[in-house]
Amino acid sequence: MRAALIDLDGVLYEGDRAVPGAAEAVAWFQEREVPHLFLTNTTSRPRKALVDKLAGLGIATDSDHLLTPPVAATGWLAAHAPGPVALFVPAATAGELGDTPRLPADAESGAAAVVLGDLGEGWDFHTLNRAFRLLMVEPRPELVALGMTRYWRAADGLRLDVAPYVKALEHASGARAVVVGKPAPEFFQAGLARVDCPATEAVLIGDDIVGDVQGAQRVGLKGLLVRTGKFRESDLGGEIRPDAVLDSIAEFPAWWRSRGDARSRA
Amino acid sequence: MRAALIDLDGVLYEGDRAVPGAAEAVAWFQEREVPHLFLTNTTSRPRKALVDKLAGLGIATDSDHLLTPPVAATGWLAAHAPGPVALFVPAATAGELGDTPRLPADAESGAAAVVLGDLGEGWDFHTLNRAFRLLMVEPRPELVALGMTRYWRAADGLRLDVAPYVKALEHASGARAVVVGKPAPEFFQAGLARVDCPATEAVLIGDDIVGDVQGAQRVGLKGLLVRTGKFRESDLGGEIRPDAVLDSIAEFPAWWRSRGDARSRA
Repeated sequence: MRAALIDLDGVLYEGDRAVPGAAEAVAWFQEREVPHLFLTNTTSRPRKALVDKLAGLGIATDSDHLLTPPVAATGWLAAHAPGPVALFVPAATAGELGDTPRLPADAESGAAAVVLGDLGEGWDFHTLNRAFRLLMVEPRPELVALGMTRYWRAADGLRLDVAPYVKALEHASGARAVVVGKPAPEFFQAGLARVDCPATEAVLIGDDIVGDVQGAQRVGLKGLLVRTGKFRESDLGGEIRPDAVLDSIAEFPAWWRSRGDARSRA
Repeated sequence: MRAALIDLDGVLYEGDRAVPGAAEAVAWFQEREVPHLFLTNTTSRPRKALVDKLAGLGIATDSDHLLTPPVAATGWLAAHAPGPVALFVPAATAGELGDTPRLPADAESGAAAVVLGDLGEGWDFHTLNRAFRLLMVEPRPELVALGMTRYWRAADGLRLDVAPYVKALEHASGARAVVVGKPAPEFFQAGLARVDCPATEAVLIGDDIVGDVQGAQRVGLKGLLVRTGKFRESDLGGEIRPDAVLDSIAEFPAWWRSRGDARSRA
């Protein structure tokens, strides 16, 4: 193993609480200069805020070590959907889309693309219905999903993420979403390019059996599942087999060392 | 043709306005004592309110001539999901579920079934998320959809109906919904039983190419599409071929007579 892609929410922290041992595990990789990248579907806050949050948990990193769907989407939109974009993302992350032209906030037609992120409590009926109406105008705008995370674990329990709203709009409108973020292969590949490592020599560690583990395995990475965050025992009863299941990221350095040892012995 | 199943919203009325000729068309069937039933996925108001609305538009009928998903669901729930039910339906229609035991309004576990109707503006994030949390409790409750209508045409434009929310929850939770209402075959068959007519001798008239026309055709009825309500010209470009396309229900008696003539001549 030469490089590590590391999910954030549920792996390094749960809500505002660090996963015990997370800071030490990240420091272990940093001290050994193992190429690594934080690969997150979080669209609820910009990279700068994520860097600040990690710093508060004892993890020092910078925006260049973070790949998020809005950043990846900016280039895609410029290439594939030139024109005004309707953003359904939190205000704090809208800035991550740079110079992408924006549709007026109340317009119900004229979008080149409808971009969905984790709007959380912002998803009321009229907001979702506006996205639907935009998609029912011919020519149909592109529907862009910033990741396809189904749900995440907040302090008070499970919370719907972006994917169910994407599915709702696909079904209502007949549109098919382009996914920018996990588990889209292009997103993992963009992460591999950033750490300059082929898939077969990289590992992803995450708490989502589908979005993290299966997504990584499909492009050839090893997929490690942690028993923190949204992990549920029933995750292990299905068809997806993680390459390893760790109690938490605190065990990641030991797993990494044992892989190295295994290779040395082989 | 011996019997007619008639959709309501978009066929007899659009918003609060009668479709011109609708009252006369219904009266024509009533005077000839053609067995007929109003088959609607409307879950936004109870049968009594629908009867009153129709009366205000000059159409006299009674609750026995109306089949709605909540009425059909009551029997299904008693047989398949005994226990407290979490209702995500407008307060006005909750009463249609009779003596079905109810889960407390803020409970996030303990449901035998999660029942979704067209909650419209009632669908805020916390409401949908509560349905999701209920579905993530083991043993998993039944997920019951009162129809699978994708959207409808309100006075101010298209509006999401129940189906996109069902799809959202199916995707997030992994549950599969039992559909009680159009286009579930059982719902059309229940309608046929009420008019005591085999499918091959009955016709359904509706404004939804999928929920009405395709649903009816799949159980052997003729499916007629009207160019009112949610009709869009693009409905005719797909794989579903209505047995006839009428400008509105006002043409239905003439279509019915021409079918009779055609059979007489054959």
